[in-house]
Amino acid sequence: MSRDFLEALQAAGPQVLTDPDAVRSAATDRSGTPVDTLPLAVVRTRSVDEVRSVLRLAHEHRVPVVPRGGGSGVAGGAVATPGCLVLDLAPMRRILELDPLDEVAVVEPGVITADLDAAAREHGLMYAPDPASAAISTLGGNIATNAGGMRCVKYGVTREAVLGLDVVLADGRLLRTGRRTLKGVAGLDLTSLFVGSEGTLGVVVGAAVRLRPVPRATVTAAAAFTDVRDAAAACAAIARERLQPSLLELLDRPTLEVIDRAQGTDLAARGGALVIAQADGVAAVAEIEEIAQVLGKEASWVEHAVDDASSERLLAARRMALPSIERFGRALIEDICVPRSRLAEAFEGIAAIATRTGVDIYSFAHAGDGNLHPIISFDAAQVPDEVVEAADAIFGLALDLGGTVTGEHGIGLLKREWLAREAGADSLETQAALKRALDPHHLLNPGKVL
Amino acid sequence: MSRDFLEALQAAGPQVLTDPDAVRSAATDRSGTPVDTLPLAVVRTRSVDEVRSVLRLAHEHRVPVVPRGGGSGVAGGAVATPGCLVLDLAPMRRILELDPLDEVAVVEPGVITADLDAAAREHGLMYAPDPASAAISTLGGNIATNAGGMRCVKYGVTREAVLGLDVVLADGRLLRTGRRTLKGVAGLDLTSLFVGSEGTLGVVVGAAVRLRPVPRATVTAAAAFTDVRDAAAACAAIARERLQPSLLELLDRPTLEVIDRAQGTDLAARGGALVIAQADGVAAVAEIEEIAQVLGKEASWVEHAVDDASSERLLAARRMALPSIERFGRALIEDICVPRSRLAEAFEGIAAIATRTGVDIYSFAHAGDGNLHPIISFDAAQVPDEVVEAADAIFGLALDLGGTVTGEHGIGLLKREWLAREAGADSLETQAALKRALDPHHLLNPGKVL
Repeated sequence: MSRDFLEALQAAGPQVLTDPDAVRSAATDRSGTPVDTLPLAVVRTRSVDEVRSVLRLAHEHRVPVVPRGGGSGVAGGAVATPGCLVLDLAPMRRILELDPLDEVAVVEPGVITADLDAAAREHGLMYAPDPASAAISTLGGNIATNAGGMRCVKYGVTREAVLGLDVVLADGRLLRTGRRTLKGVAGLDLTSLFVGSEGTLGVVVGAAVRLRPVPRATVTAAAAFTDVRDAAAACAAIARERLQPSLLELLDRPTLEVIDRAQGTDLAARGGALVIAQADGVAAVAEIEEIAQVLGKEASWVEHAVDDASSERLLAARRMALPSIERFGRALIEDICVPRSRLAEAFEGIAAIATRTGVDIYSFAHAGDGNLHPIISFDAAQVPDEVVEAADAIFGLALDLGGTVTGEHGIGLLKREWLAREAGADSLETQAALKRALDPHHLLNPGKVL
Repeated sequence: MSRDFLEALQAAGPQVLTDPDAVRSAATDRSGTPVDTLPLAVVRTRSVDEVRSVLRLAHEHRVPVVPRGGGSGVAGGAVATPGCLVLDLAPMRRILELDPLDEVAVVEPGVITADLDAAAREHGLMYAPDPASAAISTLGGNIATNAGGMRCVKYGVTREAVLGLDVVLADGRLLRTGRRTLKGVAGLDLTSLFVGSEGTLGVVVGAAVRLRPVPRATVTAAAAFTDVRDAAAACAAIARERLQPSLLELLDRPTLEVIDRAQGTDLAARGGALVIAQADGVAAVAEIEEIAQVLGKEASWVEHAVDDASSERLLAARRMALPSIERFGRALIEDICVPRSRLAEAFEGIAAIATRTGVDIYSFAHAGDGNLHPIISFDAAQVPDEVVEAADAIFGLALDLGGTVTGEHGIGLLKREWLAREAGADSLETQAALKRALDPHHLLNPGKVL
């Protein structure tokens, strides 16, 4: 049967790869999840019609399909399941339209996030969601996971940027959701249902996204504190003054130390926790001065910069965090989100988990959103038991603090059990009912999320 | 059967009204849709448990349920259908929690929109979505229609403000969606699916909503232009300069004339179209000066105000638009949204429809979002044929311009045919499949939206 299927696929037009190396390299994603059984084939599509043909055939032959963009997901959302076809949308990378007056772009799913942002900037616009993987991630993947980033604290996540979608359904039908207008409430919000559904309900083959004006200026402040508790208190003080930073990051002591070790900096000498804030817009300079003043009250060190080069220098610590950690071992990248008022407890709880389990955990956070990334570092080829134990304890901590097990990376393959605990039986059953309604044969990214 | 049902309802605790006057007054909404057959009864619930009991009983007896908040909807979303039970959630009006640090409020569905905003302001916060009906509409109703307002151009619509929901499903189960954190991507986005679903998928009995800092200052500019084309061009110029007003309204000549007639003002003497803009935040004054300068280039009159009283005076024309129209007749309130670049065409197209059909149409718009409210005024008790014809022509115009038949009011009872035209067969079938998955017996607000 699979030979018939592959022949039919080839006849339908898309590039079909069955070479073991090509198939192996498309079988997993940045989660590094090992794949025992290779997928049937990798199909690289160049058009909506090709995607429709592939899904129609897969539907007819009941072959599961795992859609794939840049492969930069860290929750295993693009990991191949046995007997599946990997649908690689990366070749569909055209920006079909960019309307500077409507502030709307229409893109294919394989467009690289940073490429869209760069194209928008030629018109004084930007694509606001900025996942750390923007240089390699695709819009389709961003939409599948409802990706976040550092600017989200002011500009919202991917969902807020998506106006409408073209989605190929499990049976090959093409669905248009939403619209190109900035507002619209005609019918159920199908667009939001597909955003963040991690390829389990349909395959995104096009998107109308909202662009935003590039702020006049972006300026930066950084401050060091004795510990994460003081740093979190300073972030809370910014909120209490009703200041609205466009970026607000918090790095803990282990993170500062590993950056120092990798980059030869002396961040940890300044304090046991670092806060980096940005303000942007017409009043950026006035706002960053106020923010720096609030941060300065309890800080052991504070500095602010109003030119781009100095701003980028202050932000460098944050940008170097993950690369520095990855220099000394493999990294399990976690992603919990708690109410902002519980930020200090989250950091301290994670530190206690590190001590108890004996693993290395480096934590930094999009503090303005309460979104923490505890990174567990380890050496072994297989993920050691104590790392799994620490990760589980972190998820439990997130729920205990009234939070969620994933703020911006998704459930994928790796957090399904935890979704069940977080959402509860009635929610899971409701989600499963929606999945059945849209994909009755469970062909789309099976085994992910639900 | 209905007697058994009503007795069981009464035994379950909620207030059950069968008095014809009470029932009649809860049978329709601000759309003014006449109701021939009165509903079985009106149930006024005071708790989540009461709502669950009502829905369990309705499910058991297969009685349709029409949920209701402030009754301020203009698309007929809360109009009673024959044999239904009206579920009045207005008594559930407690703000259960308001956390000034997390900037989150937890509310019952009957909380009046303006009351939540006022409570937030005691902490320097605001509830950003501001439908014109804020003084009488409820949060539950706002969520059901995904309500908009004048501030949406900067702060987004209701969906952007809702973090999580408590929803009673058709069979009485209580579903929790979303979360209290500012970000979260665990599982399918059930929250967004219920927002804007107009009571057809479940009954919202609680919501965690996001609050935002009150801007430091809010300042206003107004400018008059020869006609709507010049006024729309000025709005486009504001966008092209990448300025970001927090409010941007455009009123056409008939609207200015009816305000003058009702209020004794002389707006129409200044020009054939009026633009009102606001800027807010730390740089509000600098921004409004820039906006006024851009507006001033082609304006016949321009003024800007930086104090609250003068600001409110400049905005008064916009606030008086609908009341002025309603002084001289009944008003059919329409609500289309087009890409911003098509705003002038939309205004001119509506004026042509008014001429062709011989009806009075007053148009004003949330220009920054491309969201127009053409108001058709008439005298008769029944909606005259030419008014229906004009409304239909307006919807057709919206679709021709790449827009939608409803920007912020919803489909309700009145625009179902147009939803079918806008969304197309595959979208409607997908929406119907989701409806069947959540409400298999079609008991929740039947005959609305789909």
